[in-house]
Amino acid sequence: MPEAFPLAGRGTRPDDLVVAVGGLRLGAAGLVVAAGPCAVEGEETFLRTAQAVKAAGAHILRGGAFKPRTSPYSFQGLGREGLRLLGLARRRTGLPVITEVLDPRDVGEVAAAADVLQVGARNMQNFPLLKELGRAGKPVLLKRAQGATIEEWLLAAEYVLDSGNENVVLCERGHRLPGEGERRALDLGAVSLVRELSRLPVFVDPSHAAGRRGLVEANALAAAAAGARGLLVEVHENPDAALSDGAHSLRLEEFQALMGRLGRLAAALDGGLAAPPA
Amino acid sequence: MPEAFPLAGRGTRPDDLVVAVGGLRLGAAGLVVAAGPCAVEGEETFLRTAQAVKAAGAHILRGGAFKPRTSPYSFQGLGREGLRLLGLARRRTGLPVITEVLDPRDVGEVAAAADVLQVGARNMQNFPLLKELGRAGKPVLLKRAQGATIEEWLLAAEYVLDSGNENVVLCERGHRLPGEGERRALDLGAVSLVRELSRLPVFVDPSHAAGRRGLVEANALAAAAAGARGLLVEVHENPDAALSDGAHSLRLEEFQALMGRLGRLAAALDGGLAAPPA
Amino acid sequence: MPEAFPLAGRGTRPDDLVVAVGGLRLGAAGLVVAAGPCAVEGEETFLRTAQAVKAAGAHILRGGAFKPRTSPYSFQGLGREGLRLLGLARRRTGLPVITEVLDPRDVGEVAAAADVLQVGARNMQNFPLLKELGRAGKPVLLKRAQGATIEEWLLAAEYVLDSGNENVVLCERGHRLPGEGERRALDLGAVSLVRELSRLPVFVDPSHAAGRRGLVEANALAAAAAGARGLLVEVHENPDAALSDGAHSLRLEEFQALMGRLGRLAAALDGGLAAPPA
Amino acid sequence: MPEAFPLAGRGTRPDDLVVAVGGLRLGAAGLVVAAGPCAVEGEETFLRTAQAVKAAGAHILRGGAFKPRTSPYSFQGLGREGLRLLGLARRRTGLPVITEVLDPRDVGEVAAAADVLQVGARNMQNFPLLKELGRAGKPVLLKRAQGATIEEWLLAAEYVLDSGNENVVLCERGHRLPGEGERRALDLGAVSLVRELSRLPVFVDPSHAAGRRGLVEANALAAAAAGARGLLVEVHENPDAALSDGAHSLRLEEFQALMGRLGRLAAALDGGLAAPPA
Repeated sequence: MPEAFPLAGRGTRPDDLVVAVGGLRLGAAGLVVAAGPCAVEGEETFLRTAQAVKAAGAHILRGGAFKPRTSPYSFQGLGREGLRLLGLARRRTGLPVITEVLDPRDVGEVAAAADVLQVGARNMQNFPLLKELGRAGKPVLLKRAQGATIEEWLLAAEYVLDSGNENVVLCERGHRLPGEGERRALDLGAVSLVRELSRLPVFVDPSHAAGRRGLVEANALAAAAAGARGLLVEVHENPDAALSDGAHSLRLEEFQALMGRLGRLAAALDGGLAAPPA
Repeated sequence: MPEAFPLAGRGTRPDDLVVAVGGLRLGAAGLVVAAGPCAVEGEETFLRTAQAVKAAGAHILRGGAFKPRTSPYSFQGLGREGLRLLGLARRRTGLPVITEVLDPRDVGEVAAAADVLQVGARNMQNFPLLKELGRAGKPVLLKRAQGATIEEWLLAAEYVLDSGNENVVLCERGHRLPGEGERRALDLGAVSLVRELSRLPVFVDPSHAAGRRGLVEANALAAAAAGARGLLVEVHENPDAALSDGAHSLRLEEFQALMGRLGRLAAALDGGLAAPPA
Repeated sequence: MPEAFPLAGRGTRPDDLVVAVGGLRLGAAGLVVAAGPCAVEGEETFLRTAQAVKAAGAHILRGGAFKPRTSPYSFQGLGREGLRLLGLARRRTGLPVITEVLDPRDVGEVAAAADVLQVGARNMQNFPLLKELGRAGKPVLLKRAQGATIEEWLLAAEYVLDSGNENVVLCERGHRLPGEGERRALDLGAVSLVRELSRLPVFVDPSHAAGRRGLVEANALAAAAAGARGLLVEVHENPDAALSDGAHSLRLEEFQALMGRLGRLAAALDGGLAAPPA
Repeated sequence: MPEAFPLAGRGTRPDDLVVAVGGLRLGAAGLVVAAGPCAVEGEETFLRTAQAVKAAGAHILRGGAFKPRTSPYSFQGLGREGLRLLGLARRRTGLPVITEVLDPRDVGEVAAAADVLQVGARNMQNFPLLKELGRAGKPVLLKRAQGATIEEWLLAAEYVLDSGNENVVLCERGHRLPGEGERRALDLGAVSLVRELSRLPVFVDPSHAAGRRGLVEANALAAAAAGARGLLVEVHENPDAALSDGAHSLRLEEFQALMGRLGRLAAALDGGLAAPPA
């Protein structure tokens, strides 16, 4: 093998990969923010939240239809009904949508409903899923597994790329620390390092690593300062009633305040926030 | 929820689960050893190895047909041809066989060919796969993911149990340490702890954690002394030519020596090695 | 015990601790930057570097006289001669100096020579040293050990506080990740979290965690964005010839550029950089 | 440097180091067991426990006079009075004693009172202490820090050896796992690995890693099976009243049972238990 990462690396194509999504250019200058609830929970609440995050400046709408849950007895997502609501919210807001896919048998259906297909940290090395996503015809956002090396992460991206899909975005989401419960340490130094090694855009999820609401803003600002091209932020209109991840979901007004601070930070360092999708 | 692990725990059924496999009783007294190559590589070599590990006293034959590999450019296993060879070796030796399944779409086919279906550490939280295995009608061996908590491991087992499969065996395989390359620290204290919390049998894989051949025996003896009910040992007739995991595969004569030492240790502590399958 | 951290916590004294050092107010608004070489290597090079980091806007001069080295066969620092050079550079530049102390028997001598006494990550739980520092009469900067919990870190601070020293500054320096060599993941979410739990100022060391020069700036910007009150940056006039830590020491012009970017970031988010020491 | 570990390695002296302690030969064939309470708590209880562990077959008496405690508000040991009681128990039982030293200023006094000086995991890289122990004239037992690499551990041993002390025994004590509270994963594979790399004897502490009493025996048996030359076991006559580490201290009758099982295991694998000290 002449190069460790023949498709994700910069060996033969040294330029940055830019992934086009609904008028956005992921990986180009300008910070991109995807926001929305952890899970799509119902039509009214999801549409309200979608409009609110758009109004606050979010570029992409996020929401889970298929939820990977540690316990089989926890809420598993609305499934197909969730996909329908994602499509509805996309038409109403004009925002592209990102959602997670867990099962290789669902890839076609999820690809028909969403603009970006998310692979969660637990599935970073779910190779049948990665190969299926290589044939999905939609961009893929690949989260780094907890404790995974950068080599393992980029080789997981190679599975998607080598199966025929050119459009992969990487996303750091944090690593366990002793005694910290649900909080994780984001490996923000990896953002720069991976951008040296690879042409793929790098995003960061500041929400899951926070473990609780009060730490999300610091994570998000730090990630943007570290050079992330985009962020995935969990927002809920009533976190105390959320069916999952309420503890670290921002309230709408907190998300608005965060967008203001992200805009000032991004303007001070680079090209500011990305323009809204056309 | 009256109990954290309603099906894997001991709350309603305090007795040890015993999983019947081809005349063996996994989880009952008597140490069980599964052995064979990492991957099924070809008919002649696999049959020779199968006969040799049986002659050395192995109770179960292991061999991978579908291989999860970090890089898409590494050998991925023989697939269906590997399943055919597993079936052939089972008929020739009379040993039950264990093999890994990666893709929920392959569960039926693998279940038809094998006696125990293995879930690798990377797939411990591959929930669609776990649910499909709940309907497979064959025992499942569930490896613990690196860095996973015991709660996450037992809840992963709950996915299989709750989907209708009563027969789950747990398997510890090690956790990363800094500066140690492919070597892993086996969490052998977890064997006793999980046996307190759960009625499921606990096995250990001493081979992957060793990283190299010279450390496999120490891991295997330690695991047996720690109370493991069974071991999964990688054996290859010519490790230098192995298509995967050659570095930590035992040679046949090393495996014979290990079985001798395991027998003495098991006899000193408990009921010795299990009787061979009928 | 009515509170977990009776002296470091906010229970009885909810206000932020401000540590006065040579005209600076550590912990108050305004980002403070300490900079200088890993080790004091000689008079001329150290004085030149001291003047250069002052000219670039550094608030505090750093330099090691007693160096904790993994191998006994590595350069161990200049010892007392290093302390003399720190004093000389302080007089020439007017900058306060920070240096590490390893041995409880050296505390008096180091306290006579330096303005802030640094406890390295390896010594976070060196309790005789912490107790001696409680009697040193100079502020202490306490680095978090790799893999230490926040509780362990704050209880280590309690040792110093309880021994009679009110002035403790905390400093995060990173945690091991598999496969990453000398690079570490900074736990930047801990900055906000510790500021909630504790009244002590929190600094970050972006240099050691970087492992190599090209990642220091991203770490530093991220740390400032995460709310750190100060940074410790390693700078060397000729890193390739450094006796220790050359790989992640910034060149002078790189440090100048970093100060510019830190200034813009800090101005966008908070009160900008701190004023220079009087 | 012609070799990574010039004094601890096998390069120039390939034979196993044997450390003579009160008639025992640490590192030679025959498993050695050190046992006693975490801390020396008082004369009567300590002498009773000393006699009891001797009667059960322990070879060395352990007990802490200077205790490193996470919190300054926890019991810190009896100090010099503890040393006096160690000397008394040694005279009464004829067992050599091992105790921890924390402060380089205490080395002389502790060396006068004890047969083996223990360096705790937190002090593995306390270089002033290691150098002082190099001049102590008594054998040193060096615990591996949590998360330390094997290279760091052996280089810490080099500090003692290079300072003039030939007699260093290594001791593995475990590494943090997420979600496990006080329990640790013992890296038992390191026992064999370090014995390849180094001529120093390797011991294991099964007690601290257990976190609770019920898991100590499994850890101890596993450590012996993995090739440890010795064990450090915490025993208390009334663990519920212990001033430290009661949760994982064995009761006397549990220690007796453990010695029986260790004897059977060691006899099955190697040369059995060591003979009692002359």
